[in-house]
Formats: sequence, C-alpha cells, structure tokens
Amino acid sequence: KTMDHIGDLFSLDKLDAIVLSVSINSFGKVVSSLPWERVKMPSKTVVVDVLSVKIHAKTTLLELLPPDFGILCTHPMFGPESGKNGWAGLPFMFDRVRVTDRRNCEKFVKIFSDERCSMYEMSCELHDSYAASSQFITHTTGRLLSKLGLQSTPINTKGFESLLKLIETTCKDSFDLYEGLYKHNVHSKEQLTHLRKAFDELEATLIKTAEKKKKKEEEQGKSDKKAAVPAVHGSQVDVNPRVASMKPSATIQIHSLATALKDEGKKVFSLAVGEPNDTPCPK
Amino acid sequence: KTMDHIGDLFSLDKLDAIVLSVSINSFGKVVSSLPWERVKMPSKTVVVDVLSVKIHAKTTLLELLPPDFGILCTHPMFGPESGKNGWAGLPFMFDRVRVTDRRNCEKFVKIFSDERCSMYEMSCELHDSYAASSQFITHTTGRLLSKLGLQSTPINTKGFESLLKLIETTCKDSFDLYEGLYKHNVHSKEQLTHLRKAFDELEATLIKTAEKKKKKEEEQGKSDKKAAVPAVHGSQVDVNPRVASMKPSATIQIHSLATALKDEGKKVFSLAVGEPNDTPCPK
Repeated sequence: KTMDHIGDLFSLDKLDAIVLSVSINSFGKVVSSLPWERVKMPSKTVVVDVLSVKIHAKTTLLELLPPDFGILCTHPMFGPESGKNGWAGLPFMFDRVRVTDRRNCEKFVKIFSDERCSMYEMSCELHDSYAASSQFITHTTGRLLSKLGLQSTPINTKGFESLLKLIETTCKDSFDLYEGLYKHNVHSKEQLTHLRKAFDELEATLIKTAEKKKKKEEEQGKSDKKAAVPAVHGSQVDVNPRVASMKPSATIQIHSLATALKDEGKKVFSLAVGEPNDTPCPK
Repeated sequence: KTMDHIGDLFSLDKLDAIVLSVSINSFGKVVSSLPWERVKMPSKTVVVDVLSVKIHAKTTLLELLPPDFGILCTHPMFGPESGKNGWAGLPFMFDRVRVTDRRNCEKFVKIFSDERCSMYEMSCELHDSYAASSQFITHTTGRLLSKLGLQSTPINTKGFESLLKLIETTCKDSFDLYEGLYKHNVHSKEQLTHLRKAFDELEATLIKTAEKKKKKEEEQGKSDKKAAVPAVHGSQVDVNPRVASMKPSATIQIHSLATALKDEGKKVFSLAVGEPNDTPCPK
C-alpha cells in the first residue's frame, strides 16, 4: 500500500526533487525498490540523499538510479537538538554528483543557504575522511561513556557536565546510525584502531609512572622515614590488572558506604559487618 | 632561602590559616618538610589543603602534622578557566577533619560561600568515590582523545566541538595532576578497568553486527541481485584487526589527497604516482 502511494507520487507531472531520508543500513534496499520508472521527466528531477556517510550514498545512487536523474549528495550536519533554535551557522555539506537540471539542483541548495547554514561544497571522499575523525569519534566517545553508567554528582566539574550532555545527545540517535557510521565509512575502522592504541598507551604510561614514583618514594622512605607518604589503604598498591579487575566484596562495599554516611553525620544502623555490642567476657 | 622565608612567615604572631597549594605527588614531602614547630599558636591555626584527591590529603595531614593544628580538607572544583567569570554556582567541597578553633575554620569556609560557590560539605571518602567517576573520567577522556591528534574540520558538529574544547581544557592541566588523580584515588584504577571493558564490548558489538549484516546482504544478493548494496572500495571488507592497524602506504595517501583536492576543483600537480603524459608508442 505504501508502495502504491509512492508510485502515485512518483507519477505526478512535476517533481523537482526526491529526498531520500532513510537509515544508512537500509539505503541500498530502499533505492533499488523505488518505482523510478514512473517518474515522467527524470532529467528534470534531482535525487537528494542526507546520509551521514557519503561515498556509500554516491556509489549506491550512481549504480542503482536510472542514468538520467540528477544526483545531489548532501549532509545537513545537525539534528532536532542542535538545530532547534534555527540552522544559522550550522554546517551543510553538499556534492553535485550529477547535474542534469542546474536550476532544480540550485533551488534545493538555496533552501539551506537561505537559512544561513555554513555551506560546504566538498567531495564525498573528503567528507568521509573528515567525518571519521570528527562525527564517528564523537559518537564512539558518547557510546563508550554511556556504558560506564556515569551519574551526575554534587561535585560536577564543567568538563564532566559537557560529557554527560554528550552521552545524552549521542545516545538519542539510534544505534543503527552509529553502526552505519562504522560500517559504511572506510576510515572509521582506522579511527577505532587509533583509539585502542591511545588507550593502551595511556594505561601503560599511568601504570609505569605510578610504579616508578612508588619505587622512588620507597627509597626515600628508607633514608628519611618522615618524608615517606603514608600508605593510604589500597591507593599506593599497584596490583596485577587481573586482580584490579576483581569486584570488591559486597559486604565490604556496604560497610564502606555505611561508614561514609556515618562520616556525613547521618544516623546509620549497619547490619553488614558484625561489631559485637557486648562487653568482653570477664574471663 | 625559601625555607628561611617560610620559617619567618610561620613565626608571625598571628596565623589564621595556612593553605597548602602544591601538587598531589609532592604533598607528603612538602607537609613533612615545613617548619610547623615555629608556629606560635598551632591550635588557633587551620591548615587547609586544596588537592583534587581527599583521602590522601586527610591521612597525610593527620599523620604528619603536629596534633594541635586544625585541619580543613577542601576541593575548589574550578580553575582559572572555568572560574574566570567568577565563582558563583561552582562547587566547593570541604571536610572539617579536625576543628581546634571553630571561628578560624568558619572564616575560611566563608570566603567561598561569600563568593556564592555551591558549598558541599562531605567526607573525604565520599568525595573520592564521586571524583573517580566524574573528574578522573573527564581527564581520561581528554587525554585519550588528545592522543588522536584530532583537528577541527569544516564540518564540525556541536558534539565534536565540545570534545575539542574538553581536550584543550584537560590538557592545560599538567600530566602530573592527571597522574596524581590516578595514583592517589583508590577508585581510579577501577574506573580505568570499567572503561577498558566498555571499549572491548563496544568494539566487539560493532564488528559482530557489521559481520551479521554483511552476511545477510550477501544472502539477499544471491536471491535478488539488484537489492545488494554495491561494494564500496574497502568499506565492506572486515579485515583482521592486525591488518586494520597497518599504516597505509604514504604514496597512496598523498595520491588520495591529491585526488580529493582535484575533486574539489583545485588545480593540483601531483608528482606522487606516475601517470605518463606521453602518447603510447606507435608500435
């Protein structure tokens, strides 16, 4: 029934533009299933896509569209959230892949320049190389941090608040979009590999520097006992990463929480760790 | 000479507060080397620290200070950047660890409440558990992304711009501070382990979903050739992570860049990959 409706629309006398607003992952399937043959004057019609990956859009349209349609690949780099107060200054990328009717093509581009978007004409290839290092990394960071179950604390820094906002906005988008950014941009895999390498390096640096300082402090401690930083429970001990990944005992966790709340001055009756109320046995 | 100067200051008749504003990693050493014995009325003086880790500050001061000094552990959660337009609304955490002169202690706290900071009285223990999941994660994200050498692109999204700003502000702080947050907060190691786990999971999900969809598309391709998404060079191929981490040939990279710039309509004379200008040999 939807296809009948689309068929009727495609058969209208005049069609300036057909905008394909579908997910990255369904793009090929949708393009190949539309009734292009029913459009009366294909060369007067520009077919526009708005995908977040552009080489994939360009090659799909070039392969699956009848050859007389115009093709305009675009990426409006904003959504309902970032564009809610108007589109002025927000980036709009476009690539005139195949111009069959100049007037119609420019008419479409003008919609966004009239809204005072920042207009960027660039190749689909250049777009994808930029987007992998910006948009894909942004979404990856948001998805990554969302997995930590971070909560707003009473002592949020400005930087932490910007991260909480990032998690919220990136996770509003579907996982399907994120997965499409990964799968259909040739550069995304490379960026993910860079990120893994950065993580490994950072972790190694932290562990190494911490061990070096610890050794130095121990040596100082021998020659000047007072200069040694006192050992805080756990914090000075570098354990094997496997041990560090072990979950603490639930009993101890509840006990620590109770102690922290008591420190806050709250009245706590903790039944977690038994501390006998009885006086010692006289014998 | 500095120690002489500090000794003179410590010998003044009246000392309401001594604020220790030093790095996390040097804190123990500094506290143990100061001439505390020269202060005339220790119980009238409150010793204040401003470290970003608080259990370490508290235990160090309790262990190394003469017992008659007051101790106030504080964490002003802002710096020259976030506090440049005033401190109103910015979080100030404090813990009255040892009160020997109530008036002096409150006088110090009042400086920040008068500036309309958001005042948070909480235990050092609770602070460190909050800070590991907020401040340490924020710094880790900034440090991690800074290693990718991300550049501003013409097509920045709002989210990407907030990440670029995060990198800038976190990397303005010394690596020594970041290293201190890791080493002297018992919860940091655990947070780093969570982050690694999240990364592993996200990567596995991406690779798995991409493989599943690829298989599905291949099957569809067999039954309905037109429905198959065309293979974009490289983008559909799932390679071994070791292969994916290989650096592309510099020659090919320069050639791709030249091609992209040509696509932009720029005039490029590329000498990277030889394409002979001669007409073919007549024989």
